[in-house]
Amino acid sequence: MPAFNPLVERLAPPPVPSVFAWGRSYDGSRGPLIDLSQAVPGYPPHPHMLSLLGEMASSTAYCGYGPIEGDSGLRSAYAAHVSQIYGVALTPDNMHITSGCNEAFVSAIMAVAGPGQTVLMTNPFYFNHDTTLAMMGVKMRTVSCHPEDGFVPRVEALAAAVTAEVRALALVSPNNPTGAVYPPDLLLRIFELCRDKDIWLILDETYRDFLPEAGRPPHGLFAQKGWQDRLIGLYSFSKSFCIPGHRLGAITAGPKVVEQVAKVMDNLQICAPRAAQAAVAKALPLLADWREENRREIVRRAEALKAVMATVPDWRVDAVGAYFAFVRHPFQSLESAAVAERLAKQAGILCIPGDYFGEGQQHYLRFAFANADVGTIMTLGDRLREFDSLRSE
Amino acid sequence: MPAFNPLVERLAPPPVPSVFAWGRSYDGSRGPLIDLSQAVPGYPPHPHMLSLLGEMASSTAYCGYGPIEGDSGLRSAYAAHVSQIYGVALTPDNMHITSGCNEAFVSAIMAVAGPGQTVLMTNPFYFNHDTTLAMMGVKMRTVSCHPEDGFVPRVEALAAAVTAEVRALALVSPNNPTGAVYPPDLLLRIFELCRDKDIWLILDETYRDFLPEAGRPPHGLFAQKGWQDRLIGLYSFSKSFCIPGHRLGAITAGPKVVEQVAKVMDNLQICAPRAAQAAVAKALPLLADWREENRREIVRRAEALKAVMATVPDWRVDAVGAYFAFVRHPFQSLESAAVAERLAKQAGILCIPGDYFGEGQQHYLRFAFANADVGTIMTLGDRLREFDSLRSE
Repeated sequence: MPAFNPLVERLAPPPVPSVFAWGRSYDGSRGPLIDLSQAVPGYPPHPHMLSLLGEMASSTAYCGYGPIEGDSGLRSAYAAHVSQIYGVALTPDNMHITSGCNEAFVSAIMAVAGPGQTVLMTNPFYFNHDTTLAMMGVKMRTVSCHPEDGFVPRVEALAAAVTAEVRALALVSPNNPTGAVYPPDLLLRIFELCRDKDIWLILDETYRDFLPEAGRPPHGLFAQKGWQDRLIGLYSFSKSFCIPGHRLGAITAGPKVVEQVAKVMDNLQICAPRAAQAAVAKALPLLADWREENRREIVRRAEALKAVMATVPDWRVDAVGAYFAFVRHPFQSLESAAVAERLAKQAGILCIPGDYFGEGQQHYLRFAFANADVGTIMTLGDRLREFDSLRSE
Repeated sequence: MPAFNPLVERLAPPPVPSVFAWGRSYDGSRGPLIDLSQAVPGYPPHPHMLSLLGEMASSTAYCGYGPIEGDSGLRSAYAAHVSQIYGVALTPDNMHITSGCNEAFVSAIMAVAGPGQTVLMTNPFYFNHDTTLAMMGVKMRTVSCHPEDGFVPRVEALAAAVTAEVRALALVSPNNPTGAVYPPDLLLRIFELCRDKDIWLILDETYRDFLPEAGRPPHGLFAQKGWQDRLIGLYSFSKSFCIPGHRLGAITAGPKVVEQVAKVMDNLQICAPRAAQAAVAKALPLLADWREENRREIVRRAEALKAVMATVPDWRVDAVGAYFAFVRHPFQSLESAAVAERLAKQAGILCIPGDYFGEGQQHYLRFAFANADVGTIMTLGDRLREFDSLRSE
């Protein structure tokens, strides 16, 4: 058998399926499995979203190839949407539609960094960002975030890490895995750092529709002079519209960046799936109220999580926001994967080990609390206390 | 502005949109535009296909993430389908679903070759294969195919090109751009070459459902001992089901290869779009007769093209099969892009310049004749003769 690409062969298998396997080993003795693992909305898409998806998918209009950059309808609708959120005037030329946000990340990275070049990220990081760089032969450097800062990075630490080899800084806010929301002034300082150091800033805002406060722009970067030559925004329609299975994401950037991304996307898959593009173009304005109600619901879930975790001795929520909480478990001598596996099999709570998000995160677990409703979240207290008593038996 | 990735920046813009632009400059004076450019079926999907797509897309069952390797329903249905075509017994574990065949190619290449390693292809080649390797920093070497061989590669030439750096040989049969169908015995000898040289054989069979003869396996490679450790088959559902906009392709390989591809696909886009997977799983057995009728229709179009081109002096069909013809134009002193541009603007015939498929192909044009019905194809004679008289004016 010939060799595989060593960059791919040395990657660990994708983590989510192995976590699901732990869940399947749970015997149900503590109640139904509580799945806080993969970030998926714990409620169905709006019926209107489903009917639009059905209508577009059954139309011959969307069976052919479409423009590489995305259908003009969705690029326009998304430009209007982004403009409204950030209080700016962006155009369809600033938009490139992708097949989900992982593909947006791959395409953005490929546009700005090749094999042997270096991209800076935080630790902890979203594991697919790590494995994407590794698979492409792009070097990763990380800057550690700390619980005492709520896992928000320090500008000074980022600045110190931007040496001549670094081509881009890739951040996620609201953060995956920690949930930390990076404040607008911090993001502005980071943008200025990238401008001063002449590197790209890639900002993944997949979870921005679930911020604790409504109506305020997540940041002002799209209003900064020269942003089009510096900033690449990433987004996913999966979470806000509850349609990850339809695979739709987007890049917001200057037209010169969009031009490079289009070359990458043409090679990767020619164009994103078209029926979903047509459906989301219509749903973006139509389902604004529904999305706002979901945002409020996710905020209630975050509050519920904080409340219930305060009742469990020795467990600590060190960061929480948008979709995720980064939870410190009390087992000093156990790796996070061992804790998560036991938690799944013995307590029926499925979550992702902190270790999967970077070295040194063995004391943490990622709870994708947005997956579960308030009632379910409130049962975590009993389950965790029982689990703790089990361990001391 | 920071630098782009030089591997991407130096790529030419995707060729198809620029070809479309020529078509938009045509004034209609010779009749409606005849689009023989991008390979898209010139007939709509079956109504049953459309209703299945609509049904699945409007179901909550396919809104969530699915297995990375593909939904079990489609992996099973496609395994049964491939087993029937090739007269073998493959299993769902041999199948990995992708979002179109470009993504299948990217994933297969990434699984076996990293930056700086070498992949062998033919010249002419499918341009996205060239740009995909270039973007990934994988080195490409080519072996020339010749009109006197009907653009089928010579085993001896391939053997001579497989030096120690070559990790994989990537072929397309029926070929894009030439249409050449590689005979089963040639493919067997190529497989044996790859086995003897210990390299991977990647075989893109996107157009296999349009072979001139029905009922005979395209080759016997999936019955060869050890194929699972050597051969990676690629396929697209786009052409056979007329659904390129739904982005669905597949890889057929050994489970060890599927395992590596899954790591790549997880990073690229987690999973292929799910509603289309569910729809095609049902359509695969249901629409077998319809696909067979389409195959016969495409064969009639190939015959029509050969017949009409024989009536045009100085134009020569040097290869034809499945979806494409590789046509030698009579303009000795013009680059193929100049001929194609004038052909679009003056004669309303849209096709892809030979140059786009490799160095030295300036005398050729790719006609995706499957896009046009027999009646339309038969009008090519008058248009080309008028075009020739224009040039001598």
